[in-house]
Amino acid sequence: MSIKLYGGQQTRASMPRWYMEEKGIAYELVDVSIGSGQNLQPDFLAINPFGKLPAMRDESVLDASGQPVTICESGAILLHLAEHHGGEIAAPGDRSLISQWTHFANSTLAFAIFVPDQKAKVLPRLLKQLDKQLSEGFLVGNNWGAADCAVTAYLAYIKLFFPSEDLSAYPRIETLITATQQRPAYRKVMGMG
Amino acid sequence: MSIKLYGGQQTRASMPRWYMEEKGIAYELVDVSIGSGQNLQPDFLAINPFGKLPAMRDESVLDASGQPVTICESGAILLHLAEHHGGEIAAPGDRSLISQWTHFANSTLAFAIFVPDQKAKVLPRLLKQLDKQLSEGFLVGNNWGAADCAVTAYLAYIKLFFPSEDLSAYPRIETLITATQQRPAYRKVMGMG
Repeated sequence: MSIKLYGGQQTRASMPRWYMEEKGIAYELVDVSIGSGQNLQPDFLAINPFGKLPAMRDESVLDASGQPVTICESGAILLHLAEHHGGEIAAPGDRSLISQWTHFANSTLAFAIFVPDQKAKVLPRLLKQLDKQLSEGFLVGNNWGAADCAVTAYLAYIKLFFPSEDLSAYPRIETLITATQQRPAYRKVMGMG
Repeated sequence: MSIKLYGGQQTRASMPRWYMEEKGIAYELVDVSIGSGQNLQPDFLAINPFGKLPAMRDESVLDASGQPVTICESGAILLHLAEHHGGEIAAPGDRSLISQWTHFANSTLAFAIFVPDQKAKVLPRLLKQLDKQLSEGFLVGNNWGAADCAVTAYLAYIKLFFPSEDLSAYPRIETLITATQQRPAYRKVMGMG
């Protein structure tokens, strides 16, 4: 199998894993436990010297020195999968659009959800606009892809980390989160029995 | 000119702008003032409906519907520039490696710098490893590129936002920040007289 994904259930490995499950992309999951400090052991530091999860090694894609690519950052892994295994790049601009959304989800949206003063000031504006865009279809092109995966995974984090958060002002986001939590692939990667 | 970059001096537009200045890539800068709320006016919301800066329009790159690509997120803009104007992609894996670093800078490193409990717990580990990697040359390939630009810009933010931060345990990072602050292109985009 060309793809090895490193990361346990409590890490953002769930995001690229959800994408691969939905798209039927074969991968090997290597469980690295943060709880027992496995991510800081030499074995894993050889994969990602920062000790952060997730990380991915893809034997089918080489860098300029001819080595299989090994990368970390869930957004970068998703973008790599969209390019090399998801068949999402119909035109060069599509790659930049998907990249915009993986960066947006992991940076702008993540800050707005998890940093308290940003949550008060920035999140409502982002959610209002996302609610509108969700009514217009998928975020890039005509199929569910890495952009939708990244943004939806973060939106679902809102209900996961702040279960009492009132999202009724954003009905399409509420509907999307509920529908996502019922998808077998999502339930599998999130360990929802 | 094919590239229009939207963003004022107090925004992360400085990051892709620094890259273009160093690489000699021609661009038009459109100053959008956050202070006077220009970013929330219809003109700019047509460019980026989230009202966030920076944003970029590149007439030379089209999406699947044949439209020039318009994107936001400084990391995504940098990655786009590395691909289409910086000539950085020698092999497919290089793109994934650069993307890893633009996501890392804007997400993992940004959280570790700007979120107080992450600053205490995560930042030292990241800086220790970055200090080591800086001794090994450029982050991707054999030339200064988008990966170095993104990571260096964030490292320099540490001294900008926390001037008394003691970085003496990371001598290569200190040297890099000082050298960066002396570069004419960096001084120009940061408005340093």
